[in-house]
Amino acid sequence: MDINDLANKIIAQDRRALARAITLVESGRADHREQATELVDLLRDRTDHQAIRIGLSGTPGVGKSTFIESFGMMLTGGKMAMQDLQTSSEHGLRVAVLAVDPSSARSGGSILGDKTRMDRLSREPRAFIRPSPSQTHLGGVARRTREAVALCEAAGFDVVLIETVGVGQSETVVAEISDLFILLLAPAGGDELQGVKRGIMEMADMILVNKADGDLKAAAMRTCSDYSGALRLLRKRPQDPDGFPKAVAVSALAEEGLAKAWEDMQSLTAWRREHGHFDTRRAAQAQYWFDQEVRQGLLAALDREPLKGTMALIGARVAAGDITPSLAAKEVLAQLHKA
Amino acid sequence: MDINDLANKIIAQDRRALARAITLVESGRADHREQATELVDLLRDRTDHQAIRIGLSGTPGVGKSTFIESFGMMLTGGKMAMQDLQTSSEHGLRVAVLAVDPSSARSGGSILGDKTRMDRLSREPRAFIRPSPSQTHLGGVARRTREAVALCEAAGFDVVLIETVGVGQSETVVAEISDLFILLLAPAGGDELQGVKRGIMEMADMILVNKADGDLKAAAMRTCSDYSGALRLLRKRPQDPDGFPKAVAVSALAEEGLAKAWEDMQSLTAWRREHGHFDTRRAAQAQYWFDQEVRQGLLAALDREPLKGTMALIGARVAAGDITPSLAAKEVLAQLHKA
Repeated sequence: MDINDLANKIIAQDRRALARAITLVESGRADHREQATELVDLLRDRTDHQAIRIGLSGTPGVGKSTFIESFGMMLTGGKMAMQDLQTSSEHGLRVAVLAVDPSSARSGGSILGDKTRMDRLSREPRAFIRPSPSQTHLGGVARRTREAVALCEAAGFDVVLIETVGVGQSETVVAEISDLFILLLAPAGGDELQGVKRGIMEMADMILVNKADGDLKAAAMRTCSDYSGALRLLRKRPQDPDGFPKAVAVSALAEEGLAKAWEDMQSLTAWRREHGHFDTRRAAQAQYWFDQEVRQGLLAALDREPLKGTMALIGARVAAGDITPSLAAKEVLAQLHKA
Repeated sequence: MDINDLANKIIAQDRRALARAITLVESGRADHREQATELVDLLRDRTDHQAIRIGLSGTPGVGKSTFIESFGMMLTGGKMAMQDLQTSSEHGLRVAVLAVDPSSARSGGSILGDKTRMDRLSREPRAFIRPSPSQTHLGGVARRTREAVALCEAAGFDVVLIETVGVGQSETVVAEISDLFILLLAPAGGDELQGVKRGIMEMADMILVNKADGDLKAAAMRTCSDYSGALRLLRKRPQDPDGFPKAVAVSALAEEGLAKAWEDMQSLTAWRREHGHFDTRRAAQAQYWFDQEVRQGLLAALDREPLKGTMALIGARVAAGDITPSLAAKEVLAQLHKA
């Protein structure tokens, strides 16, 4: 594969080249990994287009697909003013949708395919939807998604939506990839907050309470106001202007509140750019991923000989009680440093 | 320090030697770490006394100290029959209490000292209470606690209670050290389950709902029955006989239900011993800690030169956007393998 040629085609907004490149970054083959790293680095050198990267987390049933479909259609439809993107267009924004789904091997959603779930958006020429790969290792998923985001940015997309079902650690992965991390919630049954973990709340730049329509409208409004209160109780972060993080009620189905939500996202982004927080966040994220990859690289020694065999051998002695875990670990590490 | 002599004194149940040895395992100094590892290994060689290791997790306010005091007094008081311990005594059991408290630097509880919180038990000759050290690194806390447990076992204690406030990852640490992991809860306000994470529920061998006395008795009973229902919905684990994990209501204050809870703990332990699960669990835990320590050892390279300096240098280039995180990580790891 000619990586140089592929890079040029991506910059020229060739959709097929983009799709091929994402397939490349998804591959686990060592030579593909080499090429993917080279490609992303080439593109970093040649383009400086920045999309707004929007991370979107929501458990199954909150209407994530419907939201992305409606929100994406609005953005691509040319009806929205662009206050703050490098590329501005009267003809609508170019929107890419990526999914981080560590459970994709199990869930029905991804097997049916994300395109089926977003029927209108998938036929929209300014949109690009990439179904989640059936990979389960979260480390691999994180790198693949970061690289796919970089490819979409190089291909000139204005908005990159990175979607995840809120399970396990995937929210952290998505938050560490996004400029804006958004939590999509459904109206709560009673007047209690849903079981959103505090850590997740603290990562959110905005909370959108979906389904503010029909019978659920009142519940959505109440839930929204509950979360507004909860967000106000959190410690003020330097990267937030007054009034953020905020909770907003929307209806993806009735297409209500979406324009207002997008306005909020834009004004938050504009404020952060102006005050240097936008670049600071991206720089911190890059360092985070650098650090994570070096850590993974160090731990990868466990899956290779000679350490793999040593671990099995000494691990059996540890299990049998012939040696304490600490002493065994000390011996293994000493052997490693001698080698 | 003569490690051999210290080991002999611990086996001879010398309390001061035990306290000194725990101070040794708590130390972060390299030479102390060496000696601690040697000591624990020596004791492993010379004794085969097994205590029941009981992990106890509960958030502040559930009455953990009161429970440990009442439960500990009951065990040391000689009123309890011992069905299943190697050492049996008409004069009561010997009970050690250790604390895993990663937040101890912040919380007032530990600054006041655990002994103040457990006034009667601290004056009981058959009890040994060790306040939590003001350490914050969880990895270090885990090793220190494992080693302290081993020391208490070697010193002939029948029951070792390992207490933790349920924050962060400390429950996992305690569960991976204990033979029985017990969740202590307070009666819930309404008829809703408290926000106990599913992962924590799945680790629990028993749930004790405390404060089943006075005005709260009815609420405690209801909470207990709610949790019984929730536990029944969890997947059956091979290490549990019928009826386990179970929820039981107790009152540490009125000293009610404690004998029944202890009976349950003993019958669960007896069943597990009989069916091999007791030893299997300890073997799996030893392997887990061996694996964790090797991982920590591998990652420790990040805090040492030359990697530390390289990370800072290349990290700055990553933050500046001069190189992608993946390519930077690849270069760092390649340098490391060459060296």
